Amino acid sequence: MLTGKLVTFEGPDGAGKTSALNAIVAKLQPQLGDRLVVTREPGGNQISEAIRKIILDRHNTAMDDRTEALLYAAARRQHIVQTIQPALQNDQLVLCDRYIDSSVAYQGAGRGIGEQAVYDMNQFATAGLTADLTLYFDVDAAVGLNRIQQHRQNEINRLDVEALSFHHRVQAAYLRLLADHPDRIKRVDASQPLDQVVTQALEIIASQLPTYVASKGGEDQ
Amino acid sequence: MLTGKLVTFEGPDGAGKTSALNAIVAKLQPQLGDRLVVTREPGGNQISEAIRKIILDRHNTAMDDRTEALLYAAARRQHIVQTIQPALQNDQLVLCDRYIDSSVAYQGAGRGIGEQAVYDMNQFATAGLTADLTLYFDVDAAVGLNRIQQHRQNEINRLDVEALSFHHRVQAAYLRLLADHPDRIKRVDASQPLDQVVTQALEIIASQLPTYVASKGGEDQ
Repeated sequence: MLTGKLVTFEGPDGAGKTSALNAIVAKLQPQLGDRLVVTREPGGNQISEAIRKIILDRHNTAMDDRTEALLYAAARRQHIVQTIQPALQNDQLVLCDRYIDSSVAYQGAGRGIGEQAVYDMNQFATAGLTADLTLYFDVDAAVGLNRIQQHRQNEINRLDVEALSFHHRVQAAYLRLLADHPDRIKRVDASQPLDQVVTQALEIIASQLPTYVASKGGEDQ
Repeated sequence: MLTGKLVTFEGPDGAGKTSALNAIVAKLQPQLGDRLVVTREPGGNQISEAIRKIILDRHNTAMDDRTEALLYAAARRQHIVQTIQPALQNDQLVLCDRYIDSSVAYQGAGRGIGEQAVYDMNQFATAGLTADLTLYFDVDAAVGLNRIQQHRQNEINRLDVEALSFHHRVQAAYLRLLADHPDRIKRVDASQPLDQVVTQALEIIASQLPTYVASKGGEDQ
């Protein structure tokens, strides 16, 4: 029985979701202790890391978009089996930086494979394991891309070498997912200062998963 | 336009299909010359070979069955893009040792993921590219397994360490595929001596793809 809960963090590059995730963890850790698990793909296991290495190898310029999507799904599967499922069986709250929605937005829309096709293929990878709650960190594509270019000057990889139009397609796909799954996906306004982003995200988590996170009513700000 | 034709060679381990394929190539080469392309997954390209290395690494004992199926599909996709599609666009006859049916039989039935789920996921990988003709080399699972154990004593890999019941499930899945796709899949009796196996296979290819292979009426035997 998967008695835990899975919360995924989604958004275009440069939305600041990883900074927000770190700040959220700092807030929740004292309250939850061992019940909190923070992870991101590939998740540190040997197989997913080896797969990730193939995806990010800049020498693999011949890589087809569907090959890439399948490799992401394979790494995801192994991460689920080795990290997420055990935590959910152990009644833990799992915060995961990116999950299926990223593949739908980046490979399905960004690369143009098709959002439904990528979603269906990922259902094979996850065997139907869906997030209980998804926080979508929404920021204008141009703002996000500008943030990346400022912050990551020393670690440019194959995925960063993409045009703004790609990022626009990704954002549009995220907004469609938000519209299609209003119960699961909640929007966080990521154009706000970080502390306000964190406050909004924590309020959503508390309202959706009250058995894990107590609502603070803003007292902590 | 894919004006060429794709012929896939399928069957359980030990059916002798690779020996038969080599003998068939020796017969067809003089007739077809550059129009003949012989290949097998992973197909020699850098990306598929790197994926294959992860699958066959005996240290990866934690590999989940769905992860394995997704990795096979990723390697397949790249092989299609780099080898099979260019040949079919070039009006060539492509003989390919194993294709989707192997995944349906081995991962779907053998590993128990489910034949339809593996088939559907592979439709994503192939983008619908189906074989024009599939030769199914049929041999009793016990006979096949015995042949492997005699021939491969020096190259045992993770996949060989499987029980006979696995091979029975694989064979049963192949027989279901044969029943479900009578126009595409043709049975070759692989319990015969090799020269008779080759003759039967060549007759099938000639009857199904007469614009590539002339029927010999048995004169060559």
